[in-house]
Amino acid sequence: MKLASFSREGRSSYGIIDGANVRDIGAVLGAHAPTLKDLLAGEGLDAANSAAASATPIPLSDIAFEPVIPTPDKILCVGINYATHIAEAGLPRPEKPMMFVRYPDSQVGHKQPMIRPRESEQFDYEGELAVIIGKRGRRIPTSEAFDYVAGYSCYNDGSIRDWQFHTTQFTPGKTFPSTGGFGPWLVTTDEIPDPATLSIETRLNGAVMQKASISDLVFDVPQLIAYCSTFTILNPGDVIITGTTGGVGAFRNPQVWLRAGDTIEVDISGVGVLSNPIAAEPSD
Amino acid sequence: MKLASFSREGRSSYGIIDGANVRDIGAVLGAHAPTLKDLLAGEGLDAANSAAASATPIPLSDIAFEPVIPTPDKILCVGINYATHIAEAGLPRPEKPMMFVRYPDSQVGHKQPMIRPRESEQFDYEGELAVIIGKRGRRIPTSEAFDYVAGYSCYNDGSIRDWQFHTTQFTPGKTFPSTGGFGPWLVTTDEIPDPATLSIETRLNGAVMQKASISDLVFDVPQLIAYCSTFTILNPGDVIITGTTGGVGAFRNPQVWLRAGDTIEVDISGVGVLSNPIAAEPSD
Repeated sequence: MKLASFSREGRSSYGIIDGANVRDIGAVLGAHAPTLKDLLAGEGLDAANSAAASATPIPLSDIAFEPVIPTPDKILCVGINYATHIAEAGLPRPEKPMMFVRYPDSQVGHKQPMIRPRESEQFDYEGELAVIIGKRGRRIPTSEAFDYVAGYSCYNDGSIRDWQFHTTQFTPGKTFPSTGGFGPWLVTTDEIPDPATLSIETRLNGAVMQKASISDLVFDVPQLIAYCSTFTILNPGDVIITGTTGGVGAFRNPQVWLRAGDTIEVDISGVGVLSNPIAAEPSD
Repeated sequence: MKLASFSREGRSSYGIIDGANVRDIGAVLGAHAPTLKDLLAGEGLDAANSAAASATPIPLSDIAFEPVIPTPDKILCVGINYATHIAEAGLPRPEKPMMFVRYPDSQVGHKQPMIRPRESEQFDYEGELAVIIGKRGRRIPTSEAFDYVAGYSCYNDGSIRDWQFHTTQFTPGKTFPSTGGFGPWLVTTDEIPDPATLSIETRLNGAVMQKASISDLVFDVPQLIAYCSTFTILNPGDVIITGTTGGVGAFRNPQVWLRAGDTIEVDISGVGVLSNPIAAEPSD
């Protein structure tokens, strides 16, 4: 099952992808679960499945995709979690996951523009696998970690590199408004029992810039869930962005920065393709 | 005016401190503004003042303090922002504010126990001035920054040092559940036109461990508001924790760690005293 958050005619909702349509589950269950996050926290995905038959199909061409979870309580990001990215960054292999965060207002949905702020030319892509939490947990053992996953999606952890490196702490470069893509939808775990079987590719204007197997993760999804749930409580709708692979623009020679008019895609096998145009913020 | 968030008999509310009582503003305005954050975002502090006369006074001894803002959208923390702390940490003076974050569930209110997790012995205090945002803004000029402040409070940016230094990114050590104290209340800007006139002191079981003038901040409050509001949108109820001064436990010889039974206080002149007992989490 694939679930997307979307807006249409000024109303936000969510639904199940059904071919070229989305079945508007929010219109059926919205009184109790106005958002996909609320659905995960409450009635759960089975309720969405049960409501599907009575939910109105809306052509995908008639909706605007929102971030899969528009307002997660926590968006936990992992740094340098692929051997190839560790090598290009010239960093030692980390002994623990390197964790930083984004804020929800830094996200945009599938097909929505990712925006380069006027403060920087150094707008970079990072294609990543996103894990969406389905169940509240603390100190989750790796052996049980997949029970806490609602599903997977694509994420573009768009980064403003000069602001990322103002100090040792990455925060300022990782959370500018509308710099991160999240979508197009959540694919449930019945379709992806183990994400290590997936592969990921990032394309800039059609050219492959990053390519890896998810099995190349230094810390895999169960390890990340175990680690994160030790230092913080994980709640339904929380997102763990699992890190990017080699090939980011900052470490290329010459460097590659995202520019207005570009199209950046994150393609994960079995999940889908997150595509975002790049726009520049007006200068004033 | 001093405003506190509190709970009583299972109900969360907020109110104005009036001597030994708190006037229960939430009971009057709660239909439109169920939390202090909602009040800041909506009717504003003037509405609280207008409602004070008709609000029931409750003895402070009958309430449990909650964090001043229990669920800020953003808690932005500043690292090494006092010359004395920069010196003890052996770090160069930063050219930009060093920004990391905490999550709301890492907070506790005045008099509530700050909890050392079972994963670490290295629980440390950091007394800090907290700035609570009152008005939404982006790219706020330093000259207008104070217009965006609702008020000030004390914060104990309690840190799990070994987890803070697992990698270069501080996140894991800065957001364990119930490790940060925030209170006792918000003091509005009419009482504190410029926080640079204040002084701060942290006491462990009565002994002074940290002491500084807020005027010693490397990046002052207007500069922090200007910087943060460039990389992210500031909203009512957001909190900027302005950094700690020299004297933290980790850099003492011998090191000092918080232990069950300790009392840690953050005392800011003109604001008040945030006092928290330390508790250890049960081992299982």
